[in-house]
Amino acid sequence: MNLENRYERGLAKLREIDGEIGERVVESLAGIAPDFARYLVEFPFGDIYSRPGLDLRSREIAVVAALTAMGNATPQLKVHIQAALNVGVTREEVVETIMQMAVYAGFPAALNGLMAAKEVFAQQGALGPASV
Amino acid sequence: MNLENRYERGLAKLREIDGEIGERVVESLAGIAPDFARYLVEFPFGDIYSRPGLDLRSREIAVVAALTAMGNATPQLKVHIQAALNVGVTREEVVETIMQMAVYAGFPAALNGLMAAKEVFAQQGALGPASV
Amino acid sequence: MNLENRYERGLAKLREIDGEIGERVVESLAGIAPDFARYLVEFPFGDIYSRPGLDLRSREIAVVAALTAMGNATPQLKVHIQAALNVGVTREEVVETIMQMAVYAGFPAALNGLMAAKEVFAQQGALGPASV
Amino acid sequence: MNLENRYERGLAKLREIDGEIGERVVESLAGIAPDFARYLVEFPFGDIYSRPGLDLRSREIAVVAALTAMGNATPQLKVHIQAALNVGVTREEVVETIMQMAVYAGFPAALNGLMAAKEVFAQQGALGPASV
Amino acid sequence: MNLENRYERGLAKLREIDGEIGERVVESLAGIAPDFARYLVEFPFGDIYSRPGLDLRSREIAVVAALTAMGNATPQLKVHIQAALNVGVTREEVVETIMQMAVYAGFPAALNGLMAAKEVFAQQGALGPASV
Amino acid sequence: MNLENRYERGLAKLREIDGEIGERVVESLAGIAPDFARYLVEFPFGDIYSRPGLDLRSREIAVVAALTAMGNATPQLKVHIQAALNVGVTREEVVETIMQMAVYAGFPAALNGLMAAKEVFAQQGALGPASV
Repeated sequence: MNLENRYERGLAKLREIDGEIGERVVESLAGIAPDFARYLVEFPFGDIYSRPGLDLRSREIAVVAALTAMGNATPQLKVHIQAALNVGVTREEVVETIMQMAVYAGFPAALNGLMAAKEVFAQQGALGPASV
Repeated sequence: MNLENRYERGLAKLREIDGEIGERVVESLAGIAPDFARYLVEFPFGDIYSRPGLDLRSREIAVVAALTAMGNATPQLKVHIQAALNVGVTREEVVETIMQMAVYAGFPAALNGLMAAKEVFAQQGALGPASV
Repeated sequence: MNLENRYERGLAKLREIDGEIGERVVESLAGIAPDFARYLVEFPFGDIYSRPGLDLRSREIAVVAALTAMGNATPQLKVHIQAALNVGVTREEVVETIMQMAVYAGFPAALNGLMAAKEVFAQQGALGPASV
Repeated sequence: MNLENRYERGLAKLREIDGEIGERVVESLAGIAPDFARYLVEFPFGDIYSRPGLDLRSREIAVVAALTAMGNATPQLKVHIQAALNVGVTREEVVETIMQMAVYAGFPAALNGLMAAKEVFAQQGALGPASV
Repeated sequence: MNLENRYERGLAKLREIDGEIGERVVESLAGIAPDFARYLVEFPFGDIYSRPGLDLRSREIAVVAALTAMGNATPQLKVHIQAALNVGVTREEVVETIMQMAVYAGFPAALNGLMAAKEVFAQQGALGPASV
Repeated sequence: MNLENRYERGLAKLREIDGEIGERVVESLAGIAPDFARYLVEFPFGDIYSRPGLDLRSREIAVVAALTAMGNATPQLKVHIQAALNVGVTREEVVETIMQMAVYAGFPAALNGLMAAKEVFAQQGALGPASV
């Protein structure tokens, strides 16, 4: 395995999980921190998400839970609610994961997470039946 | 469904997930806030964990992720690492979930989560092969 | 006490504390997580706020303090600044509570809390003298 | 009002609220950051706690709530649970304040806060009937 | 040193570090908490930033790092990204400081910090060459 | 640049910054998550700390600030207080950095950071004059 493969593996994984949104995040960094865009592809996606020990559905449930609980990264939470749907987590499972965070991080965190999910679901619905 | 059932359903779920540790948490509250012990059984376990929309394995992965990321509730993180193992999450999956949090909450949070897992695994190993 | 009473007691308490805003939060959940709306009424309001051991003024001071300090739930902070006023906390006491958080959570948290209070006070003033 | 008065007013307020513990915190800083000990007396106690707009009982309820919710400052939470008792908050009110944080910061934060209260109450009880 | 000097020293330091933005923050508090505006000048700027033991460049790097990592005070982060530039930290050093927070607080915190820097840099560029 | 160099560059940087403690952290992961030990060397040290755009002194000041402010990673804060001293930050500068966090994350965070520094300084002093 060489460095080039690590980046390419990450980019493929990023596309599989996040679709177009992931690439737009990478592009948004071009003008300010292009190396950070590379790290973002390499470490989270090339290293972590490419590991075989945990399926992508579980990985996305874990991220939705953590970002809901932390409550200070709404843009990323929305990206990962969409990503969860992309890899086969159902809307119901997303909602259950967020609701459960009321127990661990309080009702405001869960409420704000549910509002983020509502937005993502509405946007997805607006793209037509094929995207659901 | 009446109130008594909600408590009983919660207690059964608490035992299924947390085993003896859960009951010890409830007991530790007896001298200071017995009503809180009741709420703890009723809302998280009687209401949330009893919902059918998300399997217990995913629920425990979500909690291990969130508590690792928050980083300020080590005793509860250990309880839920054990709970994850109790409901069928493998050690490898627990480790993967915690490692992934390095991406979302930083390396210190992931490192401290891994040290918590190491302790729980060691304690479990010490109980003999039957407990593994 | 049966389950129905727990919900009804919670709804009455929610109206007493939050006024119309509380009901709008409940409605906003209808399309995405109706059960969560029920839990929100039952546990925080039916269980916790209905307890006799601490007066509502102190409870709202506690919430305004905590949400200011956490700094990641501005919508809920605004709801509770209004709720504090509803149950008899004065504007001056709200401001003092938020200012004190500079000591425990830093000046940015207190500053952002004061800006939230400024908005709530302005909106309240705009409703005319009867609403003050 | 001159600078000396600000320090003296703070020290008197610190003694009123925290008793001996407050002075021990100040002493613990002598070897590493004596100026910080002075700031600690001057700003929180000489400025904030000396303000007339909010009674000390409410101020201590606010702090116990915030430190329970933040969950990363257990030593200071214990000092303020004791301080709350010193200024007339009852044990029941302390417990209610902490329990309420389950709604805003999750059950682990409330549980850890209750365990801190249990320790403070036990230590206080051990000092004999006069200290209760 | 008397109290008046402490305020004046703070105001001079605030202007040196934050420029006009600092004074606008102070003005925004006039209608709601004028004493807090005074504390803001006195303690952070009159006391802390006026200390000789650490140069202003290092102080601003420390603040940009901390506010990026905490992730819940974006307005203040932007003020301090500008302040860092004001006291001689280069754009590259600001970006490096924020990127490094990916290691300690996760990629979302660093990403949101970089987007804040992008906004501040763009606004600065728009003011013409003299302001760069 | 190939993958092997990235690891080796990271290990050299880890030794330069953290000394023996860094290698002990890596060893502590051997039994539970050896790949995470590799990532820890590669991404933070091989990628981030090896970048030329910010000197190591500033990087360590940034980390001490961030970990003090977050307040939930005391073991890592101690490692980086020592690391700061290793790369030429003075004790006084460490103390100033931590004190400044009272403004951004509250007095408890700063107090706990100062207590961590006190421990590190004491341990360092105990190693004899050569280590000071």
